[in-house]
Amino acid sequence: MLTIEKIKDAAKTLKNTVRKTDLIHAQNLIENTEIFLKVENLQKTGSFKVRGAAYKIANLSEEEKKKGVIACSAGNHAQGVALASQKNNIKATIFIPATAPISKVESTRKLGAEIKLIDGVYDDAYNAAVEYQKQTNATFVHPFDDEDVIAGQGTIGLEILEQLPDVDAVIVPIGGGGLIAGVAFAIKQLKPDCKIYGVQSQGAGSMYQSFLNKKILELPVVHTFADGTAVKKPGVLTFDLCTKYVDDIVTVSDDEIASAILTLMERQKLVAEGAGALSVAAAMFNKLPVENKKTVCLISGGNIDVNILSRVINRGLLKSGRLSHLTIELLDKPGQLKEVSAIIADLGANVIRVRHNQGGENTDINDCFLKISMETKNQQHFEQIQKALTARGYKITSNVQ
Amino acid sequence: MLTIEKIKDAAKTLKNTVRKTDLIHAQNLIENTEIFLKVENLQKTGSFKVRGAAYKIANLSEEEKKKGVIACSAGNHAQGVALASQKNNIKATIFIPATAPISKVESTRKLGAEIKLIDGVYDDAYNAAVEYQKQTNATFVHPFDDEDVIAGQGTIGLEILEQLPDVDAVIVPIGGGGLIAGVAFAIKQLKPDCKIYGVQSQGAGSMYQSFLNKKILELPVVHTFADGTAVKKPGVLTFDLCTKYVDDIVTVSDDEIASAILTLMERQKLVAEGAGALSVAAAMFNKLPVENKKTVCLISGGNIDVNILSRVINRGLLKSGRLSHLTIELLDKPGQLKEVSAIIADLGANVIRVRHNQGGENTDINDCFLKISMETKNQQHFEQIQKALTARGYKITSNVQ
Repeated sequence: MLTIEKIKDAAKTLKNTVRKTDLIHAQNLIENTEIFLKVENLQKTGSFKVRGAAYKIANLSEEEKKKGVIACSAGNHAQGVALASQKNNIKATIFIPATAPISKVESTRKLGAEIKLIDGVYDDAYNAAVEYQKQTNATFVHPFDDEDVIAGQGTIGLEILEQLPDVDAVIVPIGGGGLIAGVAFAIKQLKPDCKIYGVQSQGAGSMYQSFLNKKILELPVVHTFADGTAVKKPGVLTFDLCTKYVDDIVTVSDDEIASAILTLMERQKLVAEGAGALSVAAAMFNKLPVENKKTVCLISGGNIDVNILSRVINRGLLKSGRLSHLTIELLDKPGQLKEVSAIIADLGANVIRVRHNQGGENTDINDCFLKISMETKNQQHFEQIQKALTARGYKITSNVQ
Repeated sequence: MLTIEKIKDAAKTLKNTVRKTDLIHAQNLIENTEIFLKVENLQKTGSFKVRGAAYKIANLSEEEKKKGVIACSAGNHAQGVALASQKNNIKATIFIPATAPISKVESTRKLGAEIKLIDGVYDDAYNAAVEYQKQTNATFVHPFDDEDVIAGQGTIGLEILEQLPDVDAVIVPIGGGGLIAGVAFAIKQLKPDCKIYGVQSQGAGSMYQSFLNKKILELPVVHTFADGTAVKKPGVLTFDLCTKYVDDIVTVSDDEIASAILTLMERQKLVAEGAGALSVAAAMFNKLPVENKKTVCLISGGNIDVNILSRVINRGLLKSGRLSHLTIELLDKPGQLKEVSAIIADLGANVIRVRHNQGGENTDINDCFLKISMETKNQQHFEQIQKALTARGYKITSNVQ
């Protein structure tokens, strides 16, 4: 049975394996709310997962340790189990679907784990892992539905209470529910008046739906930008703990998650993955009653592919009106580029790219197009620039923000 | 005169204004060196500058406080002075060259400072600030060459010694030298055997040149990606302290800085600006004798424009062979796209974009081009894929990594 003593024991056991991550006061991140960020993206392996895995492994018997452990994951759990095994000098065999990003596979391999790349999707890798378990009798480390794993994640709750004793609310991302189950249990035992809120993405709301309907439901498909939370069905243990200790669960959209990732980079200098940014997205977009409350947003991880990060940045800049593109039709006569540039500069926008093309495919042979990309303050600012150009007789054929 | 007592007094004074930032053990960041990151990018305002500014302002007389302060900066110093003034309820007037990025101007304005945007470059803004100072008698807060400012930055040295008492070496970025002067002084007073190394970028090595030549030199031009360190001439105080307390100064290239920024994002989930990544670049590219030493890299700040960050990511991925582009000439007959895809997939690369074009400008009307962007493991991997395609008769017309 999960007890607060078990979580305290986990904290002691993990002392030399995991980092006690910082709790950062993010002033002015969100108006009228005092936000504190628990930065598990700065945890070893870039996510909280190493806590649960390390506690699970520490509790194995010598006999079990000899046989090693198995896990199935394309992501943070794989790295968590690999590092925990490395620290305990035991063998880890990790099953990964062959579709997983190369960078994640390489990171896990570097931590000393044996990698089995399995053709197909997660379920295929999972089946191969189960088969292998039968042959080897190694211990299967479940990513969330395991008491030791939950106790390990719960150590984050103890740290939060130590770092901010008068915390009013904690917002926690949910995939399978191991993280929130542990954190909620720990905090409600020691400070029952602290609210615990869960967040899922709209496309993968299995715990949200189950919580709402008071029974475990399985989603037919999950599709989310927060790939670390793409779980079709919550665990039995985690669902039970959520119904007992979590005050509410909400969902956010992929666009809201992307916006939170960008905000964390720009304002807090932190890289969060999609799952990691769920808590901040919920607070930013007013999904929860945390106004004027001392609120901890748990950033669960930071393992995001940098290619995706680059796309998130561009999309975020466009959406917030800070990157704007204009195509202007010009008569091909001297001085027009100069005049357009002057109008834009006078209004305080910053041109970052200009392309000046004579004759496109579908244009009159005399036409000339000017494509301008510029840094703007916001949407109003962009509209103001367009008005000024139109007033001077320029024809805007396309505007994208 | 600068004394260790003064720096200790600064630490006491700053307690409620600045964050004691974390010291993060970055395991495996660099082979054979134990790297610890002092994350001043997670400081309030995103850089260490608030420390010096806040201590300077705290030491003003009531009379001086009433007249307010002035600063001239397009970057971190502006925000540092603005926040320090806000905390002390005094008026700050910040002169900023009109060419500064909009985002930095807005951040400074949000901290309650009055902004004077001055046409021209830094020197024009500086001259306007000097003129304004004569009229108002407000206190000019120098960005680095000031004893109080240096003492404020020196508090980072005290924190490092507290967080890692057996530190062997500290690597510090240099612009005007205020940060390294304070940190070197503090550490050498308390632990003289700890090495202090400075880093500048090759395009802005004013302290490097002066240190080497043992006299203050002024560079005719500075040009660097680490814009926070673009200083033509070191300060008198800071140069003097560097000659006394700094063991060596080295330089790194813009490409090395970009590579360090990408590494910090991917491995440590931290956003660093160019200046902020100098210390890590020096360690990564073996510029300093820190092998097997407990080495602190000071990350001075994280205020980088996200547009630039996006470009750094792409460049970094290309350079390390993890993003590769191929253009293949095909005969326009069925099944070729499928075959090429299969060859690439079999070798374990991940296709992220395909463009299939019939007839380009300079091509035969029967030709067809396939442009493929893919995620690869490294340069060897990319070469292996090219070989396999060539062996099957495909003609590669362009390859970019």
